[in-house]
Amino acid sequence: MDAYKAITTVLTVREYKPDATPASSIRRIMEAGRLTASARNKQPWSFVVVTGRGSLKKIADLAATGKHIANASFAVAVITDPQNQWSATDATRAVQSMTIQAWEEGLGSGWVGNLDREKIKELLSIPANLSLLTVIPFGYPTVQYKGKKNRKPFGEVVFSEKYGASFDEKV
Amino acid sequence: MDAYKAITTVLTVREYKPDATPASSIRRIMEAGRLTASARNKQPWSFVVVTGRGSLKKIADLAATGKHIANASFAVAVITDPQNQWSATDATRAVQSMTIQAWEEGLGSGWVGNLDREKIKELLSIPANLSLLTVIPFGYPTVQYKGKKNRKPFGEVVFSEKYGASFDEKV
Repeated sequence: MDAYKAITTVLTVREYKPDATPASSIRRIMEAGRLTASARNKQPWSFVVVTGRGSLKKIADLAATGKHIANASFAVAVITDPQNQWSATDATRAVQSMTIQAWEEGLGSGWVGNLDREKIKELLSIPANLSLLTVIPFGYPTVQYKGKKNRKPFGEVVFSEKYGASFDEKV
Repeated sequence: MDAYKAITTVLTVREYKPDATPASSIRRIMEAGRLTASARNKQPWSFVVVTGRGSLKKIADLAATGKHIANASFAVAVITDPQNQWSATDATRAVQSMTIQAWEEGLGSGWVGNLDREKIKELLSIPANLSLLTVIPFGYPTVQYKGKKNRKPFGEVVFSEKYGASFDEKV
């Protein structure tokens, strides 16, 4: 699908079919992350792809808002270098690239924020001096979503030339 | 172009043709931002689209690393609500969506981080209680880029199951 369709239809998905993801799909999703731009091209990130059901279940147990990780097709632990002051926003750019690419591959995903980061770092052998930004589960949605996304109206968030001046009136 | 092509070829561009961007392209780029997912769907963002040459030049004067904003086809000021603890990462997700969509429209862009945020807020009438994350200039590239992106090798940033275990060996 074209980028516009992928970007504007991509959904947060928390219920997954039990299907495995082809290695070629995982590879393209990780390439999407790896090739993302970052401040001064420092690429202050690394990624652990987790496919083992045992590890996914353990991560889910350590994620207050990520119990669905247990049923993901795979998950990606997003690791940043806290010495780099832009590492969180840069890695977030990579996550968004991966999320959009995953959608093109037919996979939903969703940012999980509430994690026991230290225990997950230990589980995945992540060095103590690095940070765990998030763990993103990926999987094939169990249901086909139809309808519009629940978002604020365009005219409420997009302004023209000055804050508060409606863009809608211009275009 | 498909999402994979857009995501993996999108470039940071700082030299722009003097061409105006069709309103329909700007609209799709802003829709890409508006429809992005955010923590608890709070959408803690708003955007000011700046096309006026005078304003673009003034912003450029207030951006130590963004002198090229003066020559952009347009720029987007990305505004966040600092009361929302995830506002910077959420708005970054929206920026990445816009960046990829812009590339599909033929427009390069680039994150500008070093700004006199308070003076730009004043210029664009952005309320004092909101934050300015970045101003992103967009424009048609003057040169056609060829070749590979300068990024760390796949095996250096993508691991399998545990940090440090090469993914390359698995797939």
